[in-house]
Amino acid sequence: MKILLIGATGKLGTAVGEALTGRGHEVITVGRTGGDLRYDIADPAQVTEVYERAGSVDAVVGTAGDVPYKPVLEMSPEDYRSAFHGKVLNQIELVRQGVPRIAERGSFTLITGVLGRDPIPTSSAASMANGAVEAFVRAAAIEIAPQRINAISPTVFTESLEKYGDFFPGIRPVDLAEVAQAYVRSVEGGQTGRIYTLE
Amino acid sequence: MKILLIGATGKLGTAVGEALTGRGHEVITVGRTGGDLRYDIADPAQVTEVYERAGSVDAVVGTAGDVPYKPVLEMSPEDYRSAFHGKVLNQIELVRQGVPRIAERGSFTLITGVLGRDPIPTSSAASMANGAVEAFVRAAAIEIAPQRINAISPTVFTESLEKYGDFFPGIRPVDLAEVAQAYVRSVEGGQTGRIYTLE
Repeated sequence: MKILLIGATGKLGTAVGEALTGRGHEVITVGRTGGDLRYDIADPAQVTEVYERAGSVDAVVGTAGDVPYKPVLEMSPEDYRSAFHGKVLNQIELVRQGVPRIAERGSFTLITGVLGRDPIPTSSAASMANGAVEAFVRAAAIEIAPQRINAISPTVFTESLEKYGDFFPGIRPVDLAEVAQAYVRSVEGGQTGRIYTLE
Repeated sequence: MKILLIGATGKLGTAVGEALTGRGHEVITVGRTGGDLRYDIADPAQVTEVYERAGSVDAVVGTAGDVPYKPVLEMSPEDYRSAFHGKVLNQIELVRQGVPRIAERGSFTLITGVLGRDPIPTSSAASMANGAVEAFVRAAAIEIAPQRINAISPTVFTESLEKYGDFFPGIRPVDLAEVAQAYVRSVEGGQTGRIYTLE
């Protein structure tokens, strides 16, 4: 398959790219600062450009989202808006603009995360964004068939424990390679409207 | 208790107001077009004014949200933004601005809905908003204690079946009076971070 991969330079994007390439797929990477196509998909107009540049694809895979982490009382309305634009609306736009452009039986795989169901202090914007994306995935799935849409919702990565481990006390991490396999499962499988949790 | 009730003129707001008044509480109603205080809480600045006018309260109760209903392919980015402002950010602002203002052991009860877990065609914005609010509730709960926060997530109301029944084929409705009791349970109980589902 020809697969559009958003989040080219991140740890997860790199792992997913390797897994998909390893399965024989052609991967077009998109990132703000690296990748085959350099765009910021938080801007709906740049999503359009990405699709125009990429041409016909079979699957769209999201691995990146930007959200602020602060206590609720230190958040501003702008912080929640930025989480909405940085992890929710950008991924919705991949779908909304992608449905008429990708293959008839193509698929979308979006990224959420454990904080939607199991928050930590300072995660209210991240949690909100993850909950929004997962509910959108369930809703879009029943409209876009035979195209498919799923979300991948991992806990903290083993490879990020040194940096983020203190925020996830007592929580068993998941290897990036295992998360990447969930993307493979979503892209090559037949399921839709599923949230693949890894924890 | 002194309770701030958002959504004064809606079917649900009216039922919740009656239930809370029936329990002996003092209810201050807020609505765009009716109620003791007339404000649009989709505007964060008006949320501030509501709290300044209301003075000290023990509980804040949300019963209203505005979201567009259209197929995914007919939605625009602005539609999803309006759902975010009309049902997510407005309720987040009630909490964010309310925490320093309401009673030390006060509570927030927000409104979501069945479409977050069980979508219908055209509900992607509503579903997204409900998922966002429920995840925010779980996240805020672990930060704001001993204040509490819950959400009420009802299916279609018996009293709205004539108008909306066709959108919920085969789905057993719930009486407004029963939904109102879930608000009583959230306001007077000790739970936090809970999503009370009614279906």
